Amino acid sequence: MKILHTDNASSPAGHYSQAVSYQGTLYVSGQLPVSPDGTHNIGASFAEQARLALNNLLAIVQASGGTPESLLKVTVYVAGVKHWPEFDQVYAQALGAHRPARVVVPVPELHHGYLVEIEALAQSVS
Amino acid sequence: MKILHTDNASSPAGHYSQAVSYQGTLYVSGQLPVSPDGTHNIGASFAEQARLALNNLLAIVQASGGTPESLLKVTVYVAGVKHWPEFDQVYAQALGAHRPARVVVPVPELHHGYLVEIEALAQSVS
Amino acid sequence: MKILHTDNASSPAGHYSQAVSYQGTLYVSGQLPVSPDGTHNIGASFAEQARLALNNLLAIVQASGGTPESLLKVTVYVAGVKHWPEFDQVYAQALGAHRPARVVVPVPELHHGYLVEIEALAQSVS
Repeated sequence: MKILHTDNASSPAGHYSQAVSYQGTLYVSGQLPVSPDGTHNIGASFAEQARLALNNLLAIVQASGGTPESLLKVTVYVAGVKHWPEFDQVYAQALGAHRPARVVVPVPELHHGYLVEIEALAQSVS
Repeated sequence: MKILHTDNASSPAGHYSQAVSYQGTLYVSGQLPVSPDGTHNIGASFAEQARLALNNLLAIVQASGGTPESLLKVTVYVAGVKHWPEFDQVYAQALGAHRPARVVVPVPELHHGYLVEIEALAQSVS
Repeated sequence: MKILHTDNASSPAGHYSQAVSYQGTLYVSGQLPVSPDGTHNIGASFAEQARLALNNLLAIVQASGGTPESLLKVTVYVAGVKHWPEFDQVYAQALGAHRPARVVVPVPELHHGYLVEIEALAQSVS
């Protein structure tokens, strides 16, 4: 097992690591729309929050030697299922032709009042 | 990584694939109670919705060369924890003697107003 | 695939196993704050519920030959995001220096009215 950290994604705010790599699979922790420098973006639009959370996720995947095409399965938590269509749009722009397995899970709320959080499993080359 | 598709399960309605296979594990996307031909079943009873979602899940597992016994871990999202006992009954009928790891996650709502969504990890022979 | 059971964690209350081991990875089912002997602890404080659920989780990991350091990714469901800070504290005490990947998912409710449920992926030596 290898613990992963990159300054290109926001640092963990609790007792967890950004990601763990094991036997060729990368387990990425839930990523909120926090900027890599720790700035919060609580008032940002849903689309902007989705982009910020995806930025963190993809920065972690890249730090392990991967690309967006390395994603195997993505779990998306949204505060309100009404955000489903807009998330799908932002997500398609970020991933391009690659379509990993996915589930979008509506939740009543998220930490700090954010609207979206994203976790993933990915191929790991490290 | 291998992207999987079968016409025996409902087609993805967004930017994802039905399932991805990698290193002997199948990652199956969240399956709603949509019929394989795309017909929605929003007014169906909870038990019928659970059967339809499980049908999609098992069709995908079978398309990858597996059987219900291939399931490793199943995550079930229910709109209301009151559906727990009925889900367990329908699920036991569908799986028979095999008892994969499982978690049932109550959520406030699901896409299109459905009552249940099911995702899974399974052994993959492809 | 190997089905795992230990009397040191609460027994499954439905159609699932405590955990499944496959290709070096242990898939642990969602663990509620039920005592190993089946006693319910519905009125316990959040911190006590978190300790009880973690006890079940770690007992299952140990039954497969692992330790807390074997945990790869932990998913925590909390009935109310307000419990986030207290969960993080109890969790840090239980895990010590090891920080697996993690996501904390707020849900509207949990089975039997519990406040926390925990599932995990871990290294498996069996």
